[in-house]
Amino acid sequence: MTDRAYALFEEQQAARGINLEEVKARLKELRIETPSWGYGDSGTRFKVFQKEGVPRDPFEKFEDAAQVHKLTGLAPSVAIHIPWDKVDDYGKLRAHAENLGLSIGAVNPNLFQEDDYMLGSVTNSDAAIRRKATDHLLECVDIAKETGSRDLSLWFADGTNYPGQGSIRKRKGWMQDSLTEMYKALTPEMRMLIEYKCFEPAFYHTDLADWGMAYNMALKLGPQAEVLVDTGHHLPGANIEHIVAYLIDEKRLGGFHFNSRKYADDDLIVGSVNPYELFLIFYQILSAASDGDAGIRSCVSNIAYMIDQSHNIEQKIPAMLRSVLNVQTQYAKALLVNHEEVEEAANRHDVLAAEHAVRSAFEFDVTPLLHVLREEQGLPLDPMKAYLSSGYGNGILARGKGGASW
Amino acid sequence: MTDRAYALFEEQQAARGINLEEVKARLKELRIETPSWGYGDSGTRFKVFQKEGVPRDPFEKFEDAAQVHKLTGLAPSVAIHIPWDKVDDYGKLRAHAENLGLSIGAVNPNLFQEDDYMLGSVTNSDAAIRRKATDHLLECVDIAKETGSRDLSLWFADGTNYPGQGSIRKRKGWMQDSLTEMYKALTPEMRMLIEYKCFEPAFYHTDLADWGMAYNMALKLGPQAEVLVDTGHHLPGANIEHIVAYLIDEKRLGGFHFNSRKYADDDLIVGSVNPYELFLIFYQILSAASDGDAGIRSCVSNIAYMIDQSHNIEQKIPAMLRSVLNVQTQYAKALLVNHEEVEEAANRHDVLAAEHAVRSAFEFDVTPLLHVLREEQGLPLDPMKAYLSSGYGNGILARGKGGASW
Amino acid sequence: MTDRAYALFEEQQAARGINLEEVKARLKELRIETPSWGYGDSGTRFKVFQKEGVPRDPFEKFEDAAQVHKLTGLAPSVAIHIPWDKVDDYGKLRAHAENLGLSIGAVNPNLFQEDDYMLGSVTNSDAAIRRKATDHLLECVDIAKETGSRDLSLWFADGTNYPGQGSIRKRKGWMQDSLTEMYKALTPEMRMLIEYKCFEPAFYHTDLADWGMAYNMALKLGPQAEVLVDTGHHLPGANIEHIVAYLIDEKRLGGFHFNSRKYADDDLIVGSVNPYELFLIFYQILSAASDGDAGIRSCVSNIAYMIDQSHNIEQKIPAMLRSVLNVQTQYAKALLVNHEEVEEAANRHDVLAAEHAVRSAFEFDVTPLLHVLREEQGLPLDPMKAYLSSGYGNGILARGKGGASW
Amino acid sequence: MTDRAYALFEEQQAARGINLEEVKARLKELRIETPSWGYGDSGTRFKVFQKEGVPRDPFEKFEDAAQVHKLTGLAPSVAIHIPWDKVDDYGKLRAHAENLGLSIGAVNPNLFQEDDYMLGSVTNSDAAIRRKATDHLLECVDIAKETGSRDLSLWFADGTNYPGQGSIRKRKGWMQDSLTEMYKALTPEMRMLIEYKCFEPAFYHTDLADWGMAYNMALKLGPQAEVLVDTGHHLPGANIEHIVAYLIDEKRLGGFHFNSRKYADDDLIVGSVNPYELFLIFYQILSAASDGDAGIRSCVSNIAYMIDQSHNIEQKIPAMLRSVLNVQTQYAKALLVNHEEVEEAANRHDVLAAEHAVRSAFEFDVTPLLHVLREEQGLPLDPMKAYLSSGYGNGILARGKGGASW
Repeated sequence: MTDRAYALFEEQQAARGINLEEVKARLKELRIETPSWGYGDSGTRFKVFQKEGVPRDPFEKFEDAAQVHKLTGLAPSVAIHIPWDKVDDYGKLRAHAENLGLSIGAVNPNLFQEDDYMLGSVTNSDAAIRRKATDHLLECVDIAKETGSRDLSLWFADGTNYPGQGSIRKRKGWMQDSLTEMYKALTPEMRMLIEYKCFEPAFYHTDLADWGMAYNMALKLGPQAEVLVDTGHHLPGANIEHIVAYLIDEKRLGGFHFNSRKYADDDLIVGSVNPYELFLIFYQILSAASDGDAGIRSCVSNIAYMIDQSHNIEQKIPAMLRSVLNVQTQYAKALLVNHEEVEEAANRHDVLAAEHAVRSAFEFDVTPLLHVLREEQGLPLDPMKAYLSSGYGNGILARGKGGASW
Repeated sequence: MTDRAYALFEEQQAARGINLEEVKARLKELRIETPSWGYGDSGTRFKVFQKEGVPRDPFEKFEDAAQVHKLTGLAPSVAIHIPWDKVDDYGKLRAHAENLGLSIGAVNPNLFQEDDYMLGSVTNSDAAIRRKATDHLLECVDIAKETGSRDLSLWFADGTNYPGQGSIRKRKGWMQDSLTEMYKALTPEMRMLIEYKCFEPAFYHTDLADWGMAYNMALKLGPQAEVLVDTGHHLPGANIEHIVAYLIDEKRLGGFHFNSRKYADDDLIVGSVNPYELFLIFYQILSAASDGDAGIRSCVSNIAYMIDQSHNIEQKIPAMLRSVLNVQTQYAKALLVNHEEVEEAANRHDVLAAEHAVRSAFEFDVTPLLHVLREEQGLPLDPMKAYLSSGYGNGILARGKGGASW
Repeated sequence: MTDRAYALFEEQQAARGINLEEVKARLKELRIETPSWGYGDSGTRFKVFQKEGVPRDPFEKFEDAAQVHKLTGLAPSVAIHIPWDKVDDYGKLRAHAENLGLSIGAVNPNLFQEDDYMLGSVTNSDAAIRRKATDHLLECVDIAKETGSRDLSLWFADGTNYPGQGSIRKRKGWMQDSLTEMYKALTPEMRMLIEYKCFEPAFYHTDLADWGMAYNMALKLGPQAEVLVDTGHHLPGANIEHIVAYLIDEKRLGGFHFNSRKYADDDLIVGSVNPYELFLIFYQILSAASDGDAGIRSCVSNIAYMIDQSHNIEQKIPAMLRSVLNVQTQYAKALLVNHEEVEEAANRHDVLAAEHAVRSAFEFDVTPLLHVLREEQGLPLDPMKAYLSSGYGNGILARGKGGASW
Repeated sequence: MTDRAYALFEEQQAARGINLEEVKARLKELRIETPSWGYGDSGTRFKVFQKEGVPRDPFEKFEDAAQVHKLTGLAPSVAIHIPWDKVDDYGKLRAHAENLGLSIGAVNPNLFQEDDYMLGSVTNSDAAIRRKATDHLLECVDIAKETGSRDLSLWFADGTNYPGQGSIRKRKGWMQDSLTEMYKALTPEMRMLIEYKCFEPAFYHTDLADWGMAYNMALKLGPQAEVLVDTGHHLPGANIEHIVAYLIDEKRLGGFHFNSRKYADDDLIVGSVNPYELFLIFYQILSAASDGDAGIRSCVSNIAYMIDQSHNIEQKIPAMLRSVLNVQTQYAKALLVNHEEVEEAANRHDVLAAEHAVRSAFEFDVTPLLHVLREEQGLPLDPMKAYLSSGYGNGILARGKGGASW
């Protein structure tokens, strides 16, 4: 059935002016980084449910992540979180990763789980705590050198719960001081990806609350600083694809933390709440991918696609498989947009035709395309099914309960 | 200064037709229940910061709560959470409370912290888990008999994270089955207070998601079932005072869980985000307090005012003091509304005058009134100051870190 | 290509246990009512842009609506709004509709465009205005008798902009009085569909603010009163499909006003913001369609699907075509859900499999199915294309600018 | 009573370290600009209710505005909107204003009420429409020269309702081109105040959607471009005072459009929904007013405080009186914050004391202070009462209905 389905699909797309060989070539380049912490236990403030088989150390996390890559060809790198993934010998972790066909991806400092940081880390009014926090950032730069990581992903829980608790403007200055120091420690190949979040765990003000504050910080720091968009970190109604297009136009979009939300930072599987939104994000990215400006093209080609989710109730590895597959699916659909058609309709002010030209790409079923792609890549047609029948999930049950958690 | 200030205030209010003796009489009747868990450690999913001096058991929680009541005269009862406050002998706990001048307030079942409940407690598709959950509810009714508690506060974390995860309608039926069984176990004096919440920890659908679902459940159960309004459990923009007025009109408002929110269920100190909203809630309540319908008056006089907050970064006892004082302040202001003036302006369609008649009561400084009230009650004029200079806070440091937490 | 595509699709669905003959039979029963006002000019408070060719009277509105039905077979009835569609002789309008192959659908009273109603219509503190408003409701019942309409769709703009402006509880009572009077005037075949809205044009409180208030009113009125869900009338994050499932379970879901929103009541084309949400609404409806309870089945089969949109910038007829086609598309996808598969996964607590069983139906491209359906119905395969090449759009330009508007 | 009340208040404030002479001096400097369009009819998309006595031309608008200033001493300038306030001879309008004791304030271009602008003005894909829109901006600069206005307030309705309707990035570039041309036309004394809005009338993306986009535009244009914060133009939950503090720190806060919102851009009377938020905005401003950086001090002292409201149901002049009085009240309260006390508490990490130090200033009743202030200024103690008894409101009824509207 796959062959007939693909033949029909190819015919259909050719009639629309879409060359599937090009589409497949682009799909083969898609890389989605999975997070080491996504393989461990997580939860809400009400309860962390412990699962059997959760990895007990960074090495096991990479083993689980390797399954995702082996079955999908999509996830060749794994982000780490320090100190959760602190090891004595990063060379050993790196070799372990490479033996599994993986590399170590972005390094994520953690400045929210020590008592000292209760009222702020790099924005604490206590200079000693700021020093400690900055030192941790510098330590992470050092770790990135050892792991060969290009990107440092920076999310700060810093903020206040009440007016008056801290000076908004002083904290802004302290944040800048700390990040400036970190920036100077980067090697020329490295990037700082600055994340923002509207609230949680701070419930009055968050020092980096929106894309504008992250972007402005990046402007001040220099060209190696860019913005990291976490799809769950916005106020209700925010048009994320607009922010994405905007940051690309400014050549400051560094990457994504993908996940889904309906309410707050729900951290559900990417593509499960409004798959069309994910498609529209890729539509904006692909609209810029062949821009006349080389700087914009370069920005687009360096976007780091990363998953950042908390699987509170799902099986960890299948949840990650589903996540990277959902991203691939929407990316594939976005590759079917005929940009000339959209633009032509927009230029003649035909709102309905322009909208339809975008949405109709979303409505295609890309399964035949992905099947052929996987065939060409020597991958199982249905990675989830392949995983479930692989026995890997049962094998790790021997690890028991009580593995890595945050 | 207090005397002169009060004399002036009295004169001012008399000119507006407000009799301060009546106001003080009403203020003396105000009772705000504090929650045992509000004295322990709590936090966000990112971190629970442990404080020194946090109570190590239910007995110590009551000791801390007694401070709040002793200094304010406002908080004579303490809600308990089972199993957090499970003790071998509730008679002993009750006696301890009474020795401290307190009573045991609402009993709160906990159906969200066992692995069995990961996909639902009373709405789980597994009948054995539903049975277990219902048994816990019945156990709580038994405990309430021993503690002499009138109210059972029912909050369910039950819901789903994804479409398809569970049948919305079947779960609705299971919830009703379980609560019906519980309802039958009540003594005639008891009440079931049914709480609702829009999301968290469930991120797709929550079985009791809004006041309408809680209210409809109460209708089905019978007159001893009423709705509990947690001020933090609403979607952005919800008009809480409208819901309050509505439920009073239906004689089904059972009580409140007070706290403040700016974003999601932030659980900040009540009155700290939008104090005017708290005032407007009391304005609605007081508008109904002298209604011609005895059922409405009875509903109003039986409203249980309860605090439900998570003090992640604040000192526990001072945070609770501030909370009950904030409630008292807004209640006092609401008592200054001249309802005839509001109604008269509304009836002649003078929107601005009607709005002003409400808001101007909010703008009074009720400090002179509260000072005289406290004087008459033999309480310290400034309960917070009295607490801080009492030495109690230092005394409990000997408990060390690592006390009760959730 | 259509034949091969359909053959493949049929094979694929058969393998999943889905019988396309049944699916097509259900699709043929789908009826979507379009609103007369959707063919006229509309806008925002900032500007109503006038289009050429907009109908100048109710008769022309029906002519335009007939185009939508002729090309799609989906829209055989048209809702009317009184007084916008007031005519001297409703028999004449009805005959006109029937000549066009249409019927007159729901009758919508209008209680928001007269100066008298500035501070409320049926909830105005002025008894004379309430009388006038109630009389208008009764007039609409009379009109419905003449037009042969089953449903009266009731949306009230009534509410307040400021605290104190009106008594929330008194207004609640007045609303009930008025609707009770209207209810008594209904013939046994008629239904009152009670709509709710969180805000706009009232910005403090709206008398019927959410589904719970509409539902409770329906309970009080009797079995011929049901709830009307306008998909744009909810606070951010509201789970509409949950409300839908809930109301079906209570046998009180009367119908929908379909449209899309990203922010407030944006009134965009249904299915254009989050098509998955529309699919999930149908998934809930279809989950109940073969329920064991005949009352629930009857509720489902009587749901009135209606469009309620404001096409501020789009061409009116094409916008309506797109709207009914979007509804048909998502309904078709929802018909592909294998409910046994979902339930089986949910029962074994496999969250990921259950979610996937729902979402995978959404990911099919139903174009082959809809093409064959249309072929069987003697309809153009692509109704939009057929409309654009029909010349109808050019023909109506002779009407000029300045047609019907609100 | 005023004297005794003030004496007591002064004593009380002196004890807190607050010098009322300084407070009064600051209050005397407060200037709030009212908008010409705030005196005319306005409404929602559902209905514009026409009031009797609404001004029929710009000259009458200034006459009404003069009442507000005469009675409060707060509103010496009036913003104008072109073309609503277009006159043949701006010199004549200016002289009229000056005769009334007023000046002409900010000039507001209008690019949203012509058919040409349906799909965008300065961001329209049609170069001729962009040209026309830019010419209007240049015309407004010319008008500002004639009126002696310093500020041009720029709000653009431009955006899209659907994905694909327009290129987000191209529109961004066109906006920049147009504003660059306008910027070059400014005299050295002029400022461009760039406003942003999250949605409405555009319902998918708005070209200047948030402070970050407005700020970045200002950065590109130059030092005479600053950001204008309309308090109603934010997504739910946005911390406006954070944005205010941030922009001050960047020396790019140009001014405010004050109004209140509970849901969307409700345009209610400023200070009527959450008065504490307005207070907190002033708290942030005053925290920066004596900053060590002269640039920050200069930014603060040049903030343009402007009202921008739609009084749909209120009497126009009284609504404006209430608005400027509400602003004055919260500004007065913010002047009572003891910043050293806040900072000292924050520095010793006493969250509760810091919060209390801020909030306690809000809880004072500033009526005695404002009475004495008005006495010193030769103003009526109660400007609203003075207005209502002045007869002015009756006098203008002769204008009839059907005055200026938008």
